Amino acid sequence: MQKSTLVRLKDDLEIKKPVMLVGLPGVGLVGKLVAEHLVGELEAEKIMEVYSPHFPPQVLVNKDCTVRLVSNMIYHGKANGNDVLFLVGDHQSTTSHGHYELCSLYLDVAEEFKVPRIYTLGGYPTGKLTYDETVLGVANDTKLIEEIKNYGVKFREFEPSGGIVGASGLLVAFSRMRGIEAACLMGMTPGYLMDPKSAQSLLKVICKIFDIEVNMTSLEKKAEEMESIMKKLKEKEEQLSFQEVKSTEEDLCYIG
Amino acid sequence: MQKSTLVRLKDDLEIKKPVMLVGLPGVGLVGKLVAEHLVGELEAEKIMEVYSPHFPPQVLVNKDCTVRLVSNMIYHGKANGNDVLFLVGDHQSTTSHGHYELCSLYLDVAEEFKVPRIYTLGGYPTGKLTYDETVLGVANDTKLIEEIKNYGVKFREFEPSGGIVGASGLLVAFSRMRGIEAACLMGMTPGYLMDPKSAQSLLKVICKIFDIEVNMTSLEKKAEEMESIMKKLKEKEEQLSFQEVKSTEEDLCYIG
Amino acid sequence: MQKSTLVRLKDDLEIKKPVMLVGLPGVGLVGKLVAEHLVGELEAEKIMEVYSPHFPPQVLVNKDCTVRLVSNMIYHGKANGNDVLFLVGDHQSTTSHGHYELCSLYLDVAEEFKVPRIYTLGGYPTGKLTYDETVLGVANDTKLIEEIKNYGVKFREFEPSGGIVGASGLLVAFSRMRGIEAACLMGMTPGYLMDPKSAQSLLKVICKIFDIEVNMTSLEKKAEEMESIMKKLKEKEEQLSFQEVKSTEEDLCYIG
Amino acid sequence: MQKSTLVRLKDDLEIKKPVMLVGLPGVGLVGKLVAEHLVGELEAEKIMEVYSPHFPPQVLVNKDCTVRLVSNMIYHGKANGNDVLFLVGDHQSTTSHGHYELCSLYLDVAEEFKVPRIYTLGGYPTGKLTYDETVLGVANDTKLIEEIKNYGVKFREFEPSGGIVGASGLLVAFSRMRGIEAACLMGMTPGYLMDPKSAQSLLKVICKIFDIEVNMTSLEKKAEEMESIMKKLKEKEEQLSFQEVKSTEEDLCYIG
Repeated sequence: MQKSTLVRLKDDLEIKKPVMLVGLPGVGLVGKLVAEHLVGELEAEKIMEVYSPHFPPQVLVNKDCTVRLVSNMIYHGKANGNDVLFLVGDHQSTTSHGHYELCSLYLDVAEEFKVPRIYTLGGYPTGKLTYDETVLGVANDTKLIEEIKNYGVKFREFEPSGGIVGASGLLVAFSRMRGIEAACLMGMTPGYLMDPKSAQSLLKVICKIFDIEVNMTSLEKKAEEMESIMKKLKEKEEQLSFQEVKSTEEDLCYIG
Repeated sequence: MQKSTLVRLKDDLEIKKPVMLVGLPGVGLVGKLVAEHLVGELEAEKIMEVYSPHFPPQVLVNKDCTVRLVSNMIYHGKANGNDVLFLVGDHQSTTSHGHYELCSLYLDVAEEFKVPRIYTLGGYPTGKLTYDETVLGVANDTKLIEEIKNYGVKFREFEPSGGIVGASGLLVAFSRMRGIEAACLMGMTPGYLMDPKSAQSLLKVICKIFDIEVNMTSLEKKAEEMESIMKKLKEKEEQLSFQEVKSTEEDLCYIG
Repeated sequence: MQKSTLVRLKDDLEIKKPVMLVGLPGVGLVGKLVAEHLVGELEAEKIMEVYSPHFPPQVLVNKDCTVRLVSNMIYHGKANGNDVLFLVGDHQSTTSHGHYELCSLYLDVAEEFKVPRIYTLGGYPTGKLTYDETVLGVANDTKLIEEIKNYGVKFREFEPSGGIVGASGLLVAFSRMRGIEAACLMGMTPGYLMDPKSAQSLLKVICKIFDIEVNMTSLEKKAEEMESIMKKLKEKEEQLSFQEVKSTEEDLCYIG
Repeated sequence: MQKSTLVRLKDDLEIKKPVMLVGLPGVGLVGKLVAEHLVGELEAEKIMEVYSPHFPPQVLVNKDCTVRLVSNMIYHGKANGNDVLFLVGDHQSTTSHGHYELCSLYLDVAEEFKVPRIYTLGGYPTGKLTYDETVLGVANDTKLIEEIKNYGVKFREFEPSGGIVGASGLLVAFSRMRGIEAACLMGMTPGYLMDPKSAQSLLKVICKIFDIEVNMTSLEKKAEEMESIMKKLKEKEEQLSFQEVKSTEEDLCYIG
């Protein structure tokens, strides 16, 4: 357990050239929300667990009060008859070295299953509190970019201008070195809080790509909850601004 | 000394299937207080020392002005005729990697002595200044949970909701992979200061588990000292709040 | 990809005793600006890429929305008929260990091509907002210092007094151990922002050393942009000071 | 250069059972000041250099504008006819792991030369601005403590209560494991600034131990300079307190 370790939970897997979908925690938890929603809706089955000393030294508590080590997991499911591998997890690496080590391990798995294409999912932080349903993309191949444009994904020159930090970006770059097509699809999001609304926009694109339909009720419910939280935050903000105006007026009182 | 190192202080140890009790420094020092109190009361004997470059690069000074390297130690004692190993220490690992390495080393020792069960002790931070004598538990096995409930330990779904960071949690998760039963028992504590009162609550549970009685005078004395410190802190806090109210009134003076 | 890795893009390179010019990101981006400007003007060709887990775990996005891994690169060009190697890049190492590892790797390349001399380029932070066109130098050999003085580079006892952190300094020190002459040339710069004006001063010195002339239009344009930004910053600063004075006067109002 | 490396500058050294004196940078630079003063006064000769990726990735600039890599160095000198090794340097390790690695390397050198005793020198931070000429000690052997008391070194139970961080402490603890007597001697110091006055107190003790006399003029001069700086700091502090009192009075003005 002192190196990143892959634990196989199933023997004799029959998986044919699966597309790999990666939704690890990141900006707005957008990618994680989408991938885990699909794991649930498509009743995908956990086939592998990944443990690593590059994850936080932490356990999480299950409903029945047993614990499990922080991990990443690979699920196998079917979308419209085609095999799909889902890479999801509790945390990304806490170190730069770990990012390189873990992404390398994930691509070993991808090669083992002859994965022809990888989609990594994430959020693109806008820094604004307004909603934007755009899904932005980058990829490791210009042909792939042309294809993905058909699903409504936007591609903007040099964007994200600050690059992409973490597994979502690294996997796309590393995939090229292994001859695997890969794209990173990002839902626009304020970036401050979990964003199930942005996740819905991204999920719609994924559904088009896989030519499937999935129930989004749980995401919609989460989105409503978050919207009500954001509304309260906004109200507080406005109150604060109002108070500032008031206190400025008061400040003026004793000067004149 | 460039890797974590186990130093054996005794040969020919006759220890039969000992339960292991782990009390390393953590929230409120609750686990450390309980384990070290038992080491003293049960006159346990130090049998191993663990040194590691993952501990801070620090020495501590003894009463006679000699120094000793920061370390973790394993003691051997008897509780009601049964062998017990106590894992205590000055520090936990300062790195994530070190946590994985050291927990692995501790479980090698547990396997060597055929330890059937491990209790890791810790504190559960409530963030409130009021006292709560609850002892909360998690475990690596549902049967074990049922058994431990009999000793008054509470189990709450998904709690601690933030998981458990450090050796107390990792050892429970890793134990499962080695076929060792393990539970983490946590005294509720404000979490800001050393909490000997929470340690007493936890110690009472441990005494029930081991079917022993121990003198708690020293813990009670420490608890009284801490209570007097907390009382002073609270008074200061109230004074501060009172001043705030006053200063608000004063602010109003020169506006009107 | 779990160690620093050199990727060769060209076979059968015919390069004769090239001088190596190093312009990695650093204070005011002065060294990077100069080296990348020369790579462009001399139409140097990329011959090697260096990847490392000591760089940030990040990809950058190209104009066509493909991504590339953060890297350092070596270019080959000709200056006045002589071979020159340019070492440029997106980032320096994020760890101390990585600095040692990468500098070692760069000097392996230098030895392979029988590089007789290395110039590392950087900025010298003055902490003042005024412009200074001085270029300051240090070297690993006193004869080399005498030679470089002829190109207008200034050498001041014990300066920079705080030493030089990063690859620019390490490469000069390590070069000596490999019998390679090396000097670090630093443009004076406020150090807060990208400084294309300081880069121009440094570039002029490099042109003298290589006995070449290069078009500086793009650097001049960047310098104008930065000057307009700095002007705005200064104005804001003055406004703020003015406001402070005013508010002090206002404060006085209600006391008297 | 990717591991800590010892470079030998001299062959055929004739050194008989030398005492080792360690003065690396630390609290108040007390140990460094004392050891480097002795290196100068006893005209000790540099015999080894230690480089390490655990030092900052930095070069320092000499008077003649050549650079040298940050390093630790071992000097050989004679005190009253007896051989002495001095371990001095620019920096301590920046990582916990590096502290363990480097101390191990230093003790390999000590064993090679059959060093019978090591004194590590340091400062003991009092947190007060008043001067205290006490020299405090800890050691790895009670007999050694009794001997050193004769030189005026004070030993206080459990002090320093927070232990000793860094090479000064580790070397004393590690020495015991190698059968080498070792003590850490600490000059009391405010701990905020370089403290040549505390260094003088410590140097006097060392002179007694080695039965030598050394010229202290340069340390006295440095002490005077620092005293004048501290005087100015105190004046500023008092001015500030005075202003606070004034401003409190002014605050009261507009309330009443």
